[in-house]
Amino acid sequence: MDQCYGGIEAGGTKFVCAVGSHPDDLHKESFDTTDPQQTLTRAVGFFKARNSHRPITAIGIGSFGPIDLHWDSPTYGFITSTPKKGWANTDIVGRIKASLDVPVAFDTDVNAAALGEHRWGAAKELTNFIYLTIGTGVGGGGLVNGKLLHGLVHPEMGHICLPRHVEDTYRGNCPFHNTETSYSCFEGLASGPAMTERWGQTPQSLGDDHKAWYLEAYYVSMAIVSYVCTLSPQRIIIGGGVMKHEKLIGLIRHKVKEMLNDYVQAAALLESIEDYIVLPKLGHNAGVVGAIELAKLAAVDSR
Amino acid sequence: MDQCYGGIEAGGTKFVCAVGSHPDDLHKESFDTTDPQQTLTRAVGFFKARNSHRPITAIGIGSFGPIDLHWDSPTYGFITSTPKKGWANTDIVGRIKASLDVPVAFDTDVNAAALGEHRWGAAKELTNFIYLTIGTGVGGGGLVNGKLLHGLVHPEMGHICLPRHVEDTYRGNCPFHNTETSYSCFEGLASGPAMTERWGQTPQSLGDDHKAWYLEAYYVSMAIVSYVCTLSPQRIIIGGGVMKHEKLIGLIRHKVKEMLNDYVQAAALLESIEDYIVLPKLGHNAGVVGAIELAKLAAVDSR
Repeated sequence: MDQCYGGIEAGGTKFVCAVGSHPDDLHKESFDTTDPQQTLTRAVGFFKARNSHRPITAIGIGSFGPIDLHWDSPTYGFITSTPKKGWANTDIVGRIKASLDVPVAFDTDVNAAALGEHRWGAAKELTNFIYLTIGTGVGGGGLVNGKLLHGLVHPEMGHICLPRHVEDTYRGNCPFHNTETSYSCFEGLASGPAMTERWGQTPQSLGDDHKAWYLEAYYVSMAIVSYVCTLSPQRIIIGGGVMKHEKLIGLIRHKVKEMLNDYVQAAALLESIEDYIVLPKLGHNAGVVGAIELAKLAAVDSR
Repeated sequence: MDQCYGGIEAGGTKFVCAVGSHPDDLHKESFDTTDPQQTLTRAVGFFKARNSHRPITAIGIGSFGPIDLHWDSPTYGFITSTPKKGWANTDIVGRIKASLDVPVAFDTDVNAAALGEHRWGAAKELTNFIYLTIGTGVGGGGLVNGKLLHGLVHPEMGHICLPRHVEDTYRGNCPFHNTETSYSCFEGLASGPAMTERWGQTPQSLGDDHKAWYLEAYYVSMAIVSYVCTLSPQRIIIGGGVMKHEKLIGLIRHKVKEMLNDYVQAAALLESIEDYIVLPKLGHNAGVVGAIELAKLAAVDSR
């Protein structure tokens, strides 16, 4: 039997916990994200119950952010300045480690999902790619030069500035990037809640031909163009709730090509954009499968 | 005596050739970029003349682009689809290799400059940083996870989309990103020639308090904010002719802080932005010093 690992996709709305070793060997449970005490206790309970009959080698956590990823920082493993009520300065790694006594790996939810897609999904053998999520929030992670993208902190791809469409009077719902002296950011203009606020109805309830989808494709495409010019990824994977609208990915592919206007001379963009901008192969499992992959890295590091 | 290397900063306006081993041991010559035949012959002549009394171990080239960096491509080492007259599809590496018979390394001008600043300048010991140039063109390179940033092709950081300032009626001068269905890109709005076209006078002739500098800082800052959110660099170095205006760097620092609005919680941004956004320590030598560093990598690779 394969080694068994634990994975936590720590989302702002929902936690997904799983044990197993690969996408076809997963025992999952998901529950609402309430306060940290209750939520983390429930996660610990999930792993303790399973640990007794199949010991867990290590646990990986892909978390909503911002988070502290610097090993040498006193707040390593914390969710830091999140506006999410009750969760600012939460020592998520410390809590899991103290209760379960196994190596714990920690990264952003989007970097975890990127790792899942790299091992089992749409980014196999790529060294440079981006995983985006467009849902309650907008974020991005990925690999560059074969390693997960970190730096000063970690990417906050949802907060790049985008030009507002000339016909869009909505300024965006990001509390940081909605002021006179700031700018309108990608997340503020294009997240699920932003769509709901702009149109007065949820994305799920918008008809197939509603102009909302054209505007959404416009913003997502503009962001992709900027990522392409900044990182030169070999592929872009887009997950998240808003992408469940089937028509959207096609609109985005069309618009990205139109906007780049053949400037970047690469066959992937010029000739096969449908293989360049793709949905996650692991679907909504990308995050938790990636968290399991993070756990495998932690197990190797701790040997 | 140290080994001797050759470096070429192949710019669209000017070629700089040098031999030596470090910034204080450089013999340089620079000349106008005319047609490929004449320009490359002159470069080869420079190295041949010096090779006889101090043999050159390898040559590094930091070139204007777009360029082909894929080892397995039939056009590896070429300048590819540049709009610069006469230079599209120029086999620059092949020409240098054929004439001088030494290992040749090849990268973008901005990646070369980044490497120079990494070894000798403002980015020592950093693993993730960006080198931007704002001059005749606008471009960026850098290191991510300790290695030069490449990918599908190479970054084209000057072509990210930026929101036009509400008072700016100028659409930008980028021939690719100036159409109804495209967007206004950073280079199109903020390069030296764009400034000249917008204001009817060159950047050098604009007074210290001309509003052009506030607008320039606005665009550069917006671009930096997007790079910070996408790559999370540990530092941003900005070179190029437009940055010679002394007041500009201060305006940019101020504006970046204002725009980010404390969203990214990192001391480098919140408390010491003057060490975060900096000018190149090597000044206008960054490119050619970096090309010498590229040559050192080629020498190691070929052993």
